[in-house]
Order: sequence, then C-alpha cells, then structure tokens
Amino acid sequence: MKLSDLQFDASGLIPVTVQSALDNRVLMMAYMSRESIRLSLETGETHFYSRSRKEIWHKGLTSGNTQELISLHADCDKDGLLAVVRESGPACHTGKRSCFENFEALELE
Amino acid sequence: MKLSDLQFDASGLIPVTVQSALDNRVLMMAYMSRESIRLSLETGETHFYSRSRKEIWHKGLTSGNTQELISLHADCDKDGLLAVVRESGPACHTGKRSCFENFEALELE
Repeated sequence: MKLSDLQFDASGLIPVTVQSALDNRVLMMAYMSRESIRLSLETGETHFYSRSRKEIWHKGLTSGNTQELISLHADCDKDGLLAVVRESGPACHTGKRSCFENFEALELE
Repeated sequence: MKLSDLQFDASGLIPVTVQSALDNRVLMMAYMSRESIRLSLETGETHFYSRSRKEIWHKGLTSGNTQELISLHADCDKDGLLAVVRESGPACHTGKRSCFENFEALELE
C-alpha cells in the first residue's frame, strides 16, 4: 500500500486509530496529513495533524511521551488508518494511558 | 457521559473505532450520527452512518455479521468514539475479520 493510494478528506486528512503493540489497547484517535504520514514513516515516531492548531504535531516532542511506530495499515476503503505503536508514557494529555479512559461509557440522556 | 456532550463534525457525524472484546483486535473504523448512536445503545447492536449511501446502517442486517455492543466510550476531546463489541462473523465486506487486514503496511513511494 502506497501513500498515493489513500483517500484523504476535503481537508487533506485521514483519521487514524492508535493502538498499543504491548496489549492491543486503543490509545487515541487522531488525524494524519500526507506530510505527517511521511514524517511518521521516515522517523519511526508518530506525527499527527492538529486540526485546532493547524499544524503537524510530533507526538511526545514536548512531553516525552513519544510513540514508536510499529506498523501503519489502511482499511479496506483506504480512508482510515491503524497505527500500531510502542508507547513511552501515557497517550492522553490528561495523564491517562488512553484518551478513551476519561469518561464513563456513553449513555442516552 | 451523555450523547449531548459529544462533539459532532459539520456533517453531524463522529468517527468510531470498533474493537473486538474477544482479543482487542481493531475491526473497523466508521462514523456514527446521533441517531445511529441512539439506535446502537437502545438495541445493543452497532448502527453506523454510511457517508456514501447517506443513511443509517445496521451492521450485519443483511450479512448476519452483527456486532453486539459491549461499551461505547468517548475520548478526551469528545470527538471520537471507541465501540467495544462481541462480533458475529467478519467485520469487513471482503470477508476478512478486520478491515485493516486487506493491505500490506503503508510505505512511502
């Protein structure tokens, strides 16, 4: 699978699920641009695109909580990615290991 | 966490990663609307929103490959979901268990 095969959205982004290679925990969901994918593959550490800051974000550059990229796979529609990583420290800015650990399960009102 | 707390995109959708409760395999990535979340929680089976068909899609309704919803969690930004499911049959329309098994890992050109 080549970078040019991917289906990016109108903003040039593709959603990525980040999963730990250690125990298959889903750590976070983010977005990658072509450039952040290229940087991730070239450096071996995850780079995402921040939609709020409108810039590429080298995960862990300031916190030290980097993610070593083990593999990056596209799904059958080529419009979603799965990054398997070996993480250093928590993925979430709240200090939790996974961004999905912050709240109780979703419920109807 | 309540449905009204979620951050939907301009199309009224939120991306969801679907993970198997059996072994934590990531099965697929899709989108949910408010209504498909409500249907998922009420029926206990995953319902997604098909962006191409522009309609709610009860996963497995025709194929029989339904997904029993075990839990649905939002991430720290409340703009992504993780659905943990007990699946009946493959998640992918190609017949593979996971939509992320279709291609070799992503590479630069």
